[in-house]
Formats: sequence, C-alpha cells, structure tokens
Amino acid sequence: MSLDPAAAVELGAVRVVGTGLLGASVGLGLSASGARVLLADVSPTALALARDLGAGTPDPSEGAGEPVGLVVVATPPDVTAAVVLEELKAHPDAVVTDVASVKAGVLEALRAAGADLTNYVGSHPMAGRERSGAVAARGDLFLGRPWVLSPVEGDDPAALATVRRLALALGAVPVVMPAAEHDEAVALVSHVPQVAASLVAARLRHAPDAAIALAGQGLRDVTRVAGSDPALWAQILAANAGPVGAVLTRLRDDLDRVLEALAALAGESPEAGSSAPGQAVGARGAVARVVADGNLGRERIPGKHGGVPARYAVVTVVIPDEPGALGRVFADIAAAGTNVEEVALEHAPGRAVGLLEVSVLPAAREHLQEALSAYGWHVVA
Amino acid sequence: MSLDPAAAVELGAVRVVGTGLLGASVGLGLSASGARVLLADVSPTALALARDLGAGTPDPSEGAGEPVGLVVVATPPDVTAAVVLEELKAHPDAVVTDVASVKAGVLEALRAAGADLTNYVGSHPMAGRERSGAVAARGDLFLGRPWVLSPVEGDDPAALATVRRLALALGAVPVVMPAAEHDEAVALVSHVPQVAASLVAARLRHAPDAAIALAGQGLRDVTRVAGSDPALWAQILAANAGPVGAVLTRLRDDLDRVLEALAALAGESPEAGSSAPGQAVGARGAVARVVADGNLGRERIPGKHGGVPARYAVVTVVIPDEPGALGRVFADIAAAGTNVEEVALEHAPGRAVGLLEVSVLPAAREHLQEALSAYGWHVVA
Repeated sequence: MSLDPAAAVELGAVRVVGTGLLGASVGLGLSASGARVLLADVSPTALALARDLGAGTPDPSEGAGEPVGLVVVATPPDVTAAVVLEELKAHPDAVVTDVASVKAGVLEALRAAGADLTNYVGSHPMAGRERSGAVAARGDLFLGRPWVLSPVEGDDPAALATVRRLALALGAVPVVMPAAEHDEAVALVSHVPQVAASLVAARLRHAPDAAIALAGQGLRDVTRVAGSDPALWAQILAANAGPVGAVLTRLRDDLDRVLEALAALAGESPEAGSSAPGQAVGARGAVARVVADGNLGRERIPGKHGGVPARYAVVTVVIPDEPGALGRVFADIAAAGTNVEEVALEHAPGRAVGLLEVSVLPAAREHLQEALSAYGWHVVA
Repeated sequence: MSLDPAAAVELGAVRVVGTGLLGASVGLGLSASGARVLLADVSPTALALARDLGAGTPDPSEGAGEPVGLVVVATPPDVTAAVVLEELKAHPDAVVTDVASVKAGVLEALRAAGADLTNYVGSHPMAGRERSGAVAARGDLFLGRPWVLSPVEGDDPAALATVRRLALALGAVPVVMPAAEHDEAVALVSHVPQVAASLVAARLRHAPDAAIALAGQGLRDVTRVAGSDPALWAQILAANAGPVGAVLTRLRDDLDRVLEALAALAGESPEAGSSAPGQAVGARGAVARVVADGNLGRERIPGKHGGVPARYAVVTVVIPDEPGALGRVFADIAAAGTNVEEVALEHAPGRAVGLLEVSVLPAAREHLQEALSAYGWHVVA
C-alpha cells in the first residue's frame, strides 16, 4: 500500500477544479508523487490556501494554454454537472472525471445538456473526514480506500484506464460500478447510516445532563458520524434523494412495527412473576426480530482487510491515566512478540482510567495475557 | 480507580441470585476483594460454571442458614420483580437490590404485590458486553462505570448506603436517580440507539456484496451495537416500552420530515448548473436541519473522563500490516514522551494497511509528528 508515483507521472498534467478537502487531497497526493497539478477554484482565497499547502500550482492557462490529460472536478455536489460540462468543452482532448458522492444525477444532468460523454468517467473515492476544506486535506486520504469508477456506455476505454490510473496513483482500490448501482450502495452503507446517526443524536439536544452522563461507548459509536457538516450533507442527500428515500422508507416500516409492538407492551399491567399475556408475546417477538435482523446485517460488514469479520480474541488491559501509560503497554505488547489486529480504548465516565481492548489471533491470547500480567499490568480476566 | 476491598469486606456475606454476565461479574469482583459470595441460580449447570470461574460458593442454605447482609438479584429482567419479592421474604434482615436495566416496572410490580420495600433499593450498573453469560463475566466489568441507585420513598437510608458500598466495592461510580428518571435516561442514551443501530444493520441483510464492500468506518460505528442478543434486548425494550416508544415516536416524526423532504427533492428534474427550484430549497433546509440538530446533540455527549469533549489534536500514522508494527509505533510514541489521550485504528478495505489516529493535547502534536517522522514512520500531514 502506497502512493504510486509511476502511475502519477503517466497521468501527465492534471487539472483539479475545486480545492476543498477532496480536491486538495488529490493535489497533495499527486504532487507528492511528482505529477504536475494545476489548481482552479472560484474562490481565490481557497486556491491560494491549496497552493500554500502544496497541492499544486494555480492553473495559469484557464482553458487557453498548457494541455492537460485529466481534469478532476472536485466542486460541491450541486454544481458538479455544470462544471464537468464546462471542462469537457474547454478540454476536448482530456479525460474528465468528478468525485461527487452521488453519480446518477450528474450523469443525467450531463445527458440532459446533450454533452458528448466519450471522455467522461464519473468516480467516487470512498474517503472523507468529519472535517472539511483544504486545511483538512492530506495526500494519503485515499490510501487503501475503494474508489468507485462509473463509466458511461460508449466511453472511450482509454478514459476509464486514465481514471483508474488516478485512483492507483493515490493508493486507492479502483472498483467499477454503474452509476445507479453505486448510488443505491452508498444510500445503504453511508447516507442512511448518516441520517440515522443524526436522528439519534438530535434526540439528545434537550436531554437532562444527568441522562447524558449515563452515555456509554454504544451511544458514542452510533452517533459519531452525526458530527458531519449539515450543508454538505444536505447536498449529498438531496442528490441521492430517490435511493436514500427508498431505504429510509423500508427502515420506517420496520420502525413502525417496533413502535406498534412497544405500544402493545406499554399497555401491559405489571404483575410480579407473571409471564407475558397473549398479545404481548407477539409484540416481544416483533421487537426481538428487529434485533435479530440487525445481527444478520451486522455480520455482513467486512472487517479488517475487507474480508469476513475475523474472530479475534480480545485481551483487556486497565490503563491508568498517566503520561506514557499507553505507550508502555504497547511497548510491552511488542516485547511479548504479539501482533495486534485491532485496538479500542474505552474511557470510563467520571474516572481516570481506560480499558484497552487489544484484539489478537486466538492462539496468541493466553501468551499475551501472561506476558502483560508479568510486566505488572492489570489484565482483565 | 480500582476495586475497593475494604468496602467489599464491610458488606459481609453477599448472596447473588442469577449467575449470568452481571451476577457472575459481581461475584468475581467481590470474591477477588475477599468478600464471601453465595451464589444461587435456577440452573445447576450455570451455578456450577460460575463457581468454577471463581464467582463464589453455591449458597448452602437457600434461605435457611447463613445470614447475608445483601442480596443482589441478577436474573433476566422478566423475572426480576418476582425474585426480588421472594428474596425480601426469605431474607427479612438483608438489603435486596437488583441490577435490571429498567427500574420503574420492577418497582411497580413490587408495589402491586404489596411488598414491604424498606430494605429494597433498585440499581442498574451501566456496564455490559455484547457477549453474555458467566463465561463473559469479569470482576472488573463495573470499573469506572456509572452505577445508578434508585431508592424508594420510605427506604431505610442504611439500605441505600449498603448498595452504594456494593457499587464502590466493584469500582463503579454510584449515581442516585429516581426509577422513572433513570428509565427515560436509558431510553435515550442506550435503548433508542440500540434500536436505531439494529434498524440500519437490518437493511444490510439482503444487500449486494458489492454494496457492502463499500462500507467504511462510519457504517461499522453506527451498527456496532447491532451485534447484541435479541432475546435479552426484547426483554429490555419490552420492560421500558413506554419511554423507548416516546423517544422513538419523536425520532419517527423527524424521520417523516426527512422522507417528505427527500420525496420533494427526488421529484426535481436534473438540470446542469441550475440552482434548486423553490419547493426544493425548503426541502434541502429540512434535511440540513436534521444533520445540524444531530451536531448539537452529538456535542453534548461526554468524552474522556466524563467531561465535555476535549479538543485533542490528532496525529495520523500509517501502520504497515506486519508483526509488531503497532507495538513499535507506541514504543516510539512513548520514547517521544507524549501522552496519548485516545487512539483509533482504521483499517483499509482490500489493503494491508491501517491508519492509526493518535489524539494528543494540541501543544504536543507537532513534537509527536516530528518525532515519529524522525523514527521513520509515515506521518500523514
């Protein structure tokens, strides 16, 4: 895994339009590999910032001079189609791609405008951060992430090869997928989870402090992405309104079944030692089914390295809150000769302590526990 | 932070009824501190397992012999009230508590049965694992976690003091909160997030493999708790049906607004370069509002040490997938003298690489970046 400078150089000069998080990251990555990157942005300030960060050189030609082999449109999603259209006209010999996170709408708009799409390949790098703008950009933002390529029927195959080279140059994993299929996929794995996280987090706005103080790791995980930028997400969700609406409608149907079951259960009279009366048995079943269905869906999500979730053994260590404690425990893990597959640090509300969960291959578990205990760590049995 | 053996010994003999995850963990923690723990379970097999794990001694008296000062009822939630009732009768001189995750229903059932509640204090340790049963038990399961105490009006103050001592003996943080208030709080911070995670994960059951392959850390975070036990959660949600239903109903109202907005947006015709027409402007606003409300709610969730979320600086390091790499980087972080506040390891689908995000105090960021670069690590700029 690495940036691929050979692929970057083969690209020739690359024009990047839009120097926010994604555009600036493309520029940083390609520049680091020695490619010539020409930057454009409607905002002179944003352009200057991206240049100062090392993302490339402001395009001196603006459509009338230095030839480019590839144009990467990395503008906000609501103007992507219009900018792609301009770039296709201004650079008839270049391949044009965009990095908008929704693909079918861009394509539809380009077709509606009657554009010649021979040299256009839509794309979507599955990378992002909760922070936005060039200041958050990094040249290896795309390292190891899927980069979806959505070629158009009748494309020049060389155009697809060029955009694939872009993905490889930035260390990403190219995945070819038609635009409509991509949009349904991201609705499911990205856009709907975002909406769900926001809806759950929104419920906390006016909650009593004492309630919030009981929050644990589960709530933190469910709501982490709820920290995202509202303006950007309004654009993304608007652009993928059909597929997101379809998945959310099915989710609401499930939610309605849960609500119906909860209403039946709330009507039960409490009776010490009674088992549930007739109606509520079915209601309990409906609630259990949603959780069971969630188990099945959850098990399909790939773990490390994109494979099926590996069954690692977990070693849990108590970490005192003092300088270097985490460093020392990992030094001791290294000294024990154990390879760490995953780590998670769980903090305890109200207490100066963390629990570090170290995932290792099952065969290594016992050895690591013994070694860490011998080094004086409190290993949770 | 630690178990408190002095508090454990002051408790005298403790009877634990129900030797699943929570009961066995109570037994392990108290036994480790030198307290005498008497175990009871309707299943002789479960009882023998808990004993073999070191959680305590099977109760030889079963209500007719050795006096106990405290009874901890840790049965499944649907029989909690009945068992508390039995224990109050069998041990009139002992304090009785339960650890069920919903409190008002138990109390109501006890009152309906006309029980004398002078010696009863409901409680709820905010600890759990995705795994269940005594095999997953650990004596420090409660370390640093809030342990809610819900005393009943007219309680003997000494009863509350006893249950508080139990929490302290196990290293937990006692929090006094009336039963109804507790139930509303956990609906918000635990039960509704669980339902939302399950609903999102359930949508993935029949998704195409190619779609699932695009999953990133966001989806993994949102759905992590969706791996939980359906039977247990059906009981928990059933027991807290009123408060959970109330929060979920408000969530559905928000969801309906999102769906309405998405329907309006899906009806827009794509038009290159057009800005949104009239109706859709309001729809975009509605979508943005949900994400913005989520921002506000998310910001209220406490971070490390239960305080407001600290603004740490993040140093991101590329970790090759080879034995000891993570150990070496933490050894180098320790050598740099930097205290680590949080860590997160992000794996790249399809690639043998991880990105380690190390959170440090802002003032320490630059030093750590320079030090790690000097040690030869690829620090993401």
